[in-house]
Amino acid sequence: MSDAQLNPSTAAIIGGGVIGGGWAARFLLCGWRVVVFDPHPEAEQRVADVLNNARLSWPALSDFPLPNEGELVFVDSVAEAVAEADWIQESVPEDLKIKHKVIADIEASAKASAIIGSSTSGFKPGELQEGASSPGRIMVVHPFNPVYLLPLAEVVGGDAVDKSARDRACETLRAIGMMPLVVRKEIDAHIADRFLEAVWREALWLINDDIATTEEIDEAIRMGFGLRWAQMGLFETYRLAGGEEGMAHFIAQFGPCLSWPWTKLMDVPELTDELAHKIASQSDAQSGAYCIRELERIRDRNLVGILRALKDRDWGAGTVLAEFDKRLARSDAFDIPGTIDSSGPMRILDLSVLPAWIDYNGHMTEFRYVQVFSDTCDKILVMIGMDADYVATTGAWYTAETHTMQVDEIGANQRIYSTAQMLMCDSKRIHVFYRLHATEDDRLLATCEAMYLHVGRESGQVCDAAPAMIEKAKHFADAHAGLPTPDAVGRYVGQR
Amino acid sequence: MSDAQLNPSTAAIIGGGVIGGGWAARFLLCGWRVVVFDPHPEAEQRVADVLNNARLSWPALSDFPLPNEGELVFVDSVAEAVAEADWIQESVPEDLKIKHKVIADIEASAKASAIIGSSTSGFKPGELQEGASSPGRIMVVHPFNPVYLLPLAEVVGGDAVDKSARDRACETLRAIGMMPLVVRKEIDAHIADRFLEAVWREALWLINDDIATTEEIDEAIRMGFGLRWAQMGLFETYRLAGGEEGMAHFIAQFGPCLSWPWTKLMDVPELTDELAHKIASQSDAQSGAYCIRELERIRDRNLVGILRALKDRDWGAGTVLAEFDKRLARSDAFDIPGTIDSSGPMRILDLSVLPAWIDYNGHMTEFRYVQVFSDTCDKILVMIGMDADYVATTGAWYTAETHTMQVDEIGANQRIYSTAQMLMCDSKRIHVFYRLHATEDDRLLATCEAMYLHVGRESGQVCDAAPAMIEKAKHFADAHAGLPTPDAVGRYVGQR
Repeated sequence: MSDAQLNPSTAAIIGGGVIGGGWAARFLLCGWRVVVFDPHPEAEQRVADVLNNARLSWPALSDFPLPNEGELVFVDSVAEAVAEADWIQESVPEDLKIKHKVIADIEASAKASAIIGSSTSGFKPGELQEGASSPGRIMVVHPFNPVYLLPLAEVVGGDAVDKSARDRACETLRAIGMMPLVVRKEIDAHIADRFLEAVWREALWLINDDIATTEEIDEAIRMGFGLRWAQMGLFETYRLAGGEEGMAHFIAQFGPCLSWPWTKLMDVPELTDELAHKIASQSDAQSGAYCIRELERIRDRNLVGILRALKDRDWGAGTVLAEFDKRLARSDAFDIPGTIDSSGPMRILDLSVLPAWIDYNGHMTEFRYVQVFSDTCDKILVMIGMDADYVATTGAWYTAETHTMQVDEIGANQRIYSTAQMLMCDSKRIHVFYRLHATEDDRLLATCEAMYLHVGRESGQVCDAAPAMIEKAKHFADAHAGLPTPDAVGRYVGQR
Repeated sequence: MSDAQLNPSTAAIIGGGVIGGGWAARFLLCGWRVVVFDPHPEAEQRVADVLNNARLSWPALSDFPLPNEGELVFVDSVAEAVAEADWIQESVPEDLKIKHKVIADIEASAKASAIIGSSTSGFKPGELQEGASSPGRIMVVHPFNPVYLLPLAEVVGGDAVDKSARDRACETLRAIGMMPLVVRKEIDAHIADRFLEAVWREALWLINDDIATTEEIDEAIRMGFGLRWAQMGLFETYRLAGGEEGMAHFIAQFGPCLSWPWTKLMDVPELTDELAHKIASQSDAQSGAYCIRELERIRDRNLVGILRALKDRDWGAGTVLAEFDKRLARSDAFDIPGTIDSSGPMRILDLSVLPAWIDYNGHMTEFRYVQVFSDTCDKILVMIGMDADYVATTGAWYTAETHTMQVDEIGANQRIYSTAQMLMCDSKRIHVFYRLHATEDDRLLATCEAMYLHVGRESGQVCDAAPAMIEKAKHFADAHAGLPTPDAVGRYVGQR
């Protein structure tokens, strides 16, 4: 893993609840060393639970292998936790006195260059920075649950923040797949939680007045505008409602209703025991069939599906995933091993079967096998010198024809590896045979025979590849010349 | 199409804007005859635009063929529109006088059994029913834009509604793929729009005070809680935040912040020309690169992806789609051998090349071809009777072997379609030849020859499929027996 691209180093997580655990999971899965301090007796188990959820879901968002998981360490003090940390994230309870104490402890032991992020949903950075010795590197970095899946991090520095520290923080957040949203001015609850609070208050009124149950309110959200907001938010959605006349038209049309007394938001409902009980029992009726762990898995599975759908469409949160993939693709983990053993079929890719690759039978689905073979090919092409420059100036290798055999099954999260045997190459053609194996027992899962043709960028026609490229390809073909030809080579579909 | 399942008949659409046009599209695509009255000179074009968007997106949500599109008629009066209608939907401007006039005109000419639904977002049913001769069948049926994709319809009858009429309305809404949410008590703005109003007001304050731009607000929504709300809504999401201790714990923890002065919602910002201009120009900066038509297509493409992801996971709005599929599957339209033209290669999938399917050469990448062939296979397997029950109890068809040829290139957003030619089937094997074409000019893009084996659920071994399934597969094989064998069949990789 290249330092330049993902820059994994050490993160200190102060407070290991759902939010702190989510931060720990994100850093760990990006290859960071994570040191956790949380005096709660069940802190280790709680972090392990979140991490387990994250392992089952987050890798399914990437099309490139993630780095090896970093080391997770629990320590007994803030001082130990932060000593070597490059990023320090506090997610302790929402009590300003506790936060000030923790920040003072952090400052006493942290490296001068470390970023100090706070997960606070309510406090402004100015409040956190009060009395601090290094206020310039203290900022709100407010994530959303589940931290390992949702890209948003509100970054609020206030007037005292050092701009270069904030820029570094944003770059680190991008490197762990997040979308830093720099908030221009500090304000109570930042941006998103102000909306959540408004909706929450209105919802309490609707329940208090028996207009709707918790379930009915959730249906009113997720069957309608929730689906719009997952991809466009509020204003872009309303822009569409305005039609070709645009946003000004929408405002002219709907502006007047601002003076209507629809909501009761001028008023705050009293949260009596009775109302609290009503909400809790309605929620039990709605969701009680699932335990929290099940609901979390359902939520994560849904989020993976929604996020991947947006990624396929290169839109919104999906674009954040695609950018993260570019970092993974550029990193050393996806580069040429200098010392590849070409005395036999070359081991090219090592990866896990992603949860999203599973079909209704519970096994890795057909086209994902082809995807792995295709990624294997991409790596070989990089090995023989086909980089972005070559594609932009000279040409590229196109897949002309493949023959794939599925031999055995494999389930989610199992490790697999691919090998390549170069059958033949000349100046215009490369003929390769791939095998996919289960790592655990080397069991053969699938094979693929493929023919690639070199196509010129300008001509769009089959033509000779660059001599240096042909030479590299020939090196592998020569090394494999003595290997037995696999049975499946030259086979047609249905051959006995 | 069976009357019992989808019950297509005649709908009158009074007012053909974005909402009325969306209703028209949903009814038409479900096979209803739709009669539109709208005096606007561009009404026909506006309905055609919405319908065109709907045709491009809604069918992609179903795994069964929709019925033939119904007939669309424009007429010159409310009386003509409603005369034969079983469902009458008014979507005229939000002005109670206009609504009362339209409802009186409807009542004067409508069948006694017709439901009268109003798309009003603000008025209560009691207000609409004032002075009506048949208040019992007048109700709010409030949809969400785009009406042809979002399942939610808030159904509010108030005290005067006839319960059996309301039940019939709900059944009709389900039959056109919607999710009726019966609102218990009438209230201004029903449920969902009260939340939208609360968020809108808060957003205006944030813009007014230069805390955030329209784009930043949209990012704060769609990168975070919007992704949660698309699948769970507010309360189920918060249930997770409470952890195993549940909703009561969450309320105890966060209840106090209700008295905090985070939002400015006790106060309403004045919508000055200056603020309106600020919003409009920020929105232009954010989204002005796309015209409204493009944004609508992007929105719909995203919604299709999100909804299909939820459907794959049988959750929320996805469950509504799955239920609708069951209606389609039970309907006569899906009497397989009857409806698909199997005299030649059968046209199976019609879709767009998604932006994420593009490789570094700017063309649809290798394994996405295989994905389309794999999806084509899935649909054929459904056609011959492999449903979730069959997989759970009996067995499934596995891909044993494929041979793929890439013939030509295609870029993003182009329309493509796949065909299938059944080469052979017996009790254990299906041998199929697929072609992928560009829709624009029928150009051949790729071919795939595939062999599938039937594997028993218990045994894990190749075994006979159910006789009814074999019979259906044989029907296609027989129909295709006289077709010429494609050149690529039986071909091996590198064959000259």
